[in-house]
Amino acid sequence: MNPTHIARCAQLAMILEVSASPKPGNVDRDHDFDDTKYEHFLASAIGAGPVLERAAIAQKDMGSFIREAVEESVRWQSGGNTHFGAFLLLVPLVMAAGNGDIKSVTEIVQDTSVEDAVELYKAFQCVDVHVRDVKDLSIDDPNSINELRRRGLMLYDVMRISAGYDAIAHEWISGFQRAFKGASVLEEKLKEMSMNDAIVFTYLTLLSEQPDALVQSKFGMKKAIEVSKRASQMIEKWDLDAIRDFDEELIQEGVNPGSTADIVIGSLFIALLGGVKL
Amino acid sequence: MNPTHIARCAQLAMILEVSASPKPGNVDRDHDFDDTKYEHFLASAIGAGPVLERAAIAQKDMGSFIREAVEESVRWQSGGNTHFGAFLLLVPLVMAAGNGDIKSVTEIVQDTSVEDAVELYKAFQCVDVHVRDVKDLSIDDPNSINELRRRGLMLYDVMRISAGYDAIAHEWISGFQRAFKGASVLEEKLKEMSMNDAIVFTYLTLLSEQPDALVQSKFGMKKAIEVSKRASQMIEKWDLDAIRDFDEELIQEGVNPGSTADIVIGSLFIALLGGVKL
Repeated sequence: MNPTHIARCAQLAMILEVSASPKPGNVDRDHDFDDTKYEHFLASAIGAGPVLERAAIAQKDMGSFIREAVEESVRWQSGGNTHFGAFLLLVPLVMAAGNGDIKSVTEIVQDTSVEDAVELYKAFQCVDVHVRDVKDLSIDDPNSINELRRRGLMLYDVMRISAGYDAIAHEWISGFQRAFKGASVLEEKLKEMSMNDAIVFTYLTLLSEQPDALVQSKFGMKKAIEVSKRASQMIEKWDLDAIRDFDEELIQEGVNPGSTADIVIGSLFIALLGGVKL
Repeated sequence: MNPTHIARCAQLAMILEVSASPKPGNVDRDHDFDDTKYEHFLASAIGAGPVLERAAIAQKDMGSFIREAVEESVRWQSGGNTHFGAFLLLVPLVMAAGNGDIKSVTEIVQDTSVEDAVELYKAFQCVDVHVRDVKDLSIDDPNSINELRRRGLMLYDVMRISAGYDAIAHEWISGFQRAFKGASVLEEKLKEMSMNDAIVFTYLTLLSEQPDALVQSKFGMKKAIEVSKRASQMIEKWDLDAIRDFDEELIQEGVNPGSTADIVIGSLFIALLGGVKL
């Protein structure tokens, strides 16, 4: 498949995701965070396009493409971390698409190298990301890169170590299951809903099925489970006003299910690449 | 300047323009038209990226790049005409930027050919555009292409003929004066306003200075002048609630100052290329 087509599907996935509203707790077209605003996400998505296009062609050096995507993202906007988690999903998916079979993402991530892991750690230097540290491999410790090399840890290994508490890492070791599931939900809902509402529905579905990892790491498991239960009620009742209230509530509390939003970007990419039209 | 950078500035210009809200009478992040929705503009802006990148490199065949941009726009979304007028401004500006000097756009448009004019007429076949016909050269008459060739009319000639009533054509023959003016207004306002508000201010300023050509062609000169006077009041008072009311009023009436919005896209492109950051 045409690399420019793949890159544009990725850009549009990021832009449609951040635009979808109300998306409880996260930045959307009507809600900014204090430092990170809607427009920062738009600029980040546009900025990363050419790196993603090159990743679709290259079929190797995944870690450096992730780092370059992060670098371009922060070169195009001053709002800090917008798409770090998204790039960790999109770069492998884009490479799989460039390979002609998006399902091959499962093998592509297993085929990463120690240098890919080193590049990921370099990417962490570019922007302030909220992640739980891998034991003995803190992203803040300059020695971690030597440690990765000493232990011969591939990027896939790092993800396997983190998969218990990191939603993106879990996607890596589970064949991007939730991203593909989200794509199916989205395609199904598009038969009866607008693109905006279908994205909101997909987001709430994924959130209801799995406590958000970012919420869990910031507010603990109890809160993350509570948010997921509320999301579940929202999709049962499907009342946009109620969803708007839920959104306001989470924003007031500073509770942002950002890991779930990242996975929705993966879902949108898969759906757009699969032919979903606007 | 790097063609991928130029193309991304153009994509982002289109996306920021359509996102800016309240933008009286036009599609924005909170207002769809019946057939043409916010998301259609987003997809169109993303879709056109690679054509604009190639235009930045090619430095010739302007007409075919305009046609290709329109074709990509409608291939990526089903909402009809989103960026026809914008591409007529962006393609020459992108080529000038690719040439290393955006001010060279004045010479670049003068240097167009008869084939460029023919390609523009082909572009009109791709999508339903509201324009006043050039006398003896109706866009609906298949014979117009032969007539262009017979009379040896270059794209610049067609624009010169239309410049009295078409705002985009007027930009072509006046060195893109209003687009550059808008870029200065935007940069000035960014010192005191958010990007969103600065775009709204720029839009209202350009609208206040010149009755919108699309409004004039649909509703007559009297209405177009009235809308411009109201825009002038809006920037004097600068009350976002009042601008929101004005927006609702125009949307109810179906009055969309689309030509002014196109020129704002040109302004945003010039400003982003000039280094304006988000």
